[in-house]
Amino acid sequence: MDYILGVDGGGTNTVAQIADSTGKLITENESGPSNYKSVGIENAKKSINNSILGAIRNLKNSKKIVFKSSCFGLSGNDSDYDLNIYEEIIFNNKIKKYLNPAKTIICNDTRIGLAAGSSSKNSIMIICGTGSNCYGINEKREEAKANGWDYILGDEGSGYNIGIKALRAIMRAYDGRGEKTLLSETILEDLNIKDISELIGWAYSESFSKEKIASIAETVCRTAEMGDKISIKILEEEAKEAVISVGAVAKKLNLTNKEFDLVLGGSVFMCEKYFKAIFIEKLKDKFPKINFKPLTKKPVSGAIRLAIKNL
Amino acid sequence: MDYILGVDGGGTNTVAQIADSTGKLITENESGPSNYKSVGIENAKKSINNSILGAIRNLKNSKKIVFKSSCFGLSGNDSDYDLNIYEEIIFNNKIKKYLNPAKTIICNDTRIGLAAGSSSKNSIMIICGTGSNCYGINEKREEAKANGWDYILGDEGSGYNIGIKALRAIMRAYDGRGEKTLLSETILEDLNIKDISELIGWAYSESFSKEKIASIAETVCRTAEMGDKISIKILEEEAKEAVISVGAVAKKLNLTNKEFDLVLGGSVFMCEKYFKAIFIEKLKDKFPKINFKPLTKKPVSGAIRLAIKNL
Repeated sequence: MDYILGVDGGGTNTVAQIADSTGKLITENESGPSNYKSVGIENAKKSINNSILGAIRNLKNSKKIVFKSSCFGLSGNDSDYDLNIYEEIIFNNKIKKYLNPAKTIICNDTRIGLAAGSSSKNSIMIICGTGSNCYGINEKREEAKANGWDYILGDEGSGYNIGIKALRAIMRAYDGRGEKTLLSETILEDLNIKDISELIGWAYSESFSKEKIASIAETVCRTAEMGDKISIKILEEEAKEAVISVGAVAKKLNLTNKEFDLVLGGSVFMCEKYFKAIFIEKLKDKFPKINFKPLTKKPVSGAIRLAIKNL
Repeated sequence: MDYILGVDGGGTNTVAQIADSTGKLITENESGPSNYKSVGIENAKKSINNSILGAIRNLKNSKKIVFKSSCFGLSGNDSDYDLNIYEEIIFNNKIKKYLNPAKTIICNDTRIGLAAGSSSKNSIMIICGTGSNCYGINEKREEAKANGWDYILGDEGSGYNIGIKALRAIMRAYDGRGEKTLLSETILEDLNIKDISELIGWAYSESFSKEKIASIAETVCRTAEMGDKISIKILEEEAKEAVISVGAVAKKLNLTNKEFDLVLGGSVFMCEKYFKAIFIEKLKDKFPKINFKPLTKKPVSGAIRLAIKNL
């Protein structure tokens, strides 16, 4: 049997799938994070090895395996410099014997997410999760991206951005610099925090975590649904940012007047009324021929799909 | 001779001054940072001790000294909880014999900055430096503050905020998500950075530093003077934030229709045309009876002044 390998490496975990050449899943295995920018090269290598070796152990005759084709979708893989590092990480002594270098794709995790969500030749993926990112490809195989520069250089439209704005809105209300907002109660409640002075401790005492700030986006969504103007404004602003990202990628790929798929990924899209609906409405106005595709499959399945196309 | 002690403890250094009871400076000594929130309790204690003991060593008969009155203006001293910690730090075995607890004021560093810049009974200080902060006091001795919640919870009007917005403007232009800006050239030039991929390394490879991001504010000011619209917009937005902070404090202190001093501190006010001038113009419209006072003396001199008033 021919075996196909797909790997989805992210900031939280790494998922490896092995499938047959028709794409039928045989086994899956998960390990720790593998974005070298956040966990370092050695830990990234360990996670990638563990995810693949664990999946291989689930097979019979595991020693004789060489993957016919494989695809790695890795977050943090944004430049030629990064690609060199990931090549070093991937073709290491523990796993290189299983790989066929001529049939190994190493791309960004948005690329596999896009493949998991759309089979159209013209397609864009937008992720609004802890961070945000937008990536697309057209029928000429041209690729383009926008946004996704993380918490300092900017990932507008992300849960992190929503969380930061919500926290600052609380402090503005507390100071008398801004309008009152229900967020002052709901955020403290959801974080199980007594008062503002404890909130300050929460924000600064532990080591900086994008994830804990991004988790506030869920509260903002709930508070918006309670009618809170500040929450609605924050979500609208960030939905518009997501629209701007898609517009920038569509323009670079010459898709402005063409039909294309738009795959939506990331937890912020679970905020239906004040984020997703506004996002969709504004994009429909701009690009009437857009097909919205919620991401229903795991991104790793896109890695399998790309590996099979490369057979 | 009666000796007076003033201490200015900040995130960068700690300055101790000894003066006579007329306020005439006798000696000054400087040591490391003493904001316990950033350097920890033990290091804060060490810096405070070193600054004071060094100043005392400069005096004759240093062993017999007990300060008639003293005042500590300490950054990070924002709540009763903080005050308890700073009392433990200050009344330690190495220096407590020099202090008269009944005549020792422990306040925030904005309080001494205000005293250094104004002798009016109704006065507000606004700091727009790396961070920002606004603090005031009225004739009833009521105090109020706004802003100054640091880089997560917000210090709008700060060099840090200006720097972050400028970096994000570069990435927006790079992505095609935003207008072109001269900042794309000037920031890389000033930071001695080759291209965007090196900028990403600069932003994330080293440990997070507010100071390095805030230093970009100077570039934004220069680029605004070259006519760059994005830079002008960023500076205007942040100048308005500083105006909002002053307005919130003035309102809390019932100074809206009264004459009061406004002391300006921090490096961002060196940006004359597109920050300071806009800030002053907008405030004059709102509060015609305001007296602007640039801070020309060292904040530690305000600690001496407060200690003498408490004699």
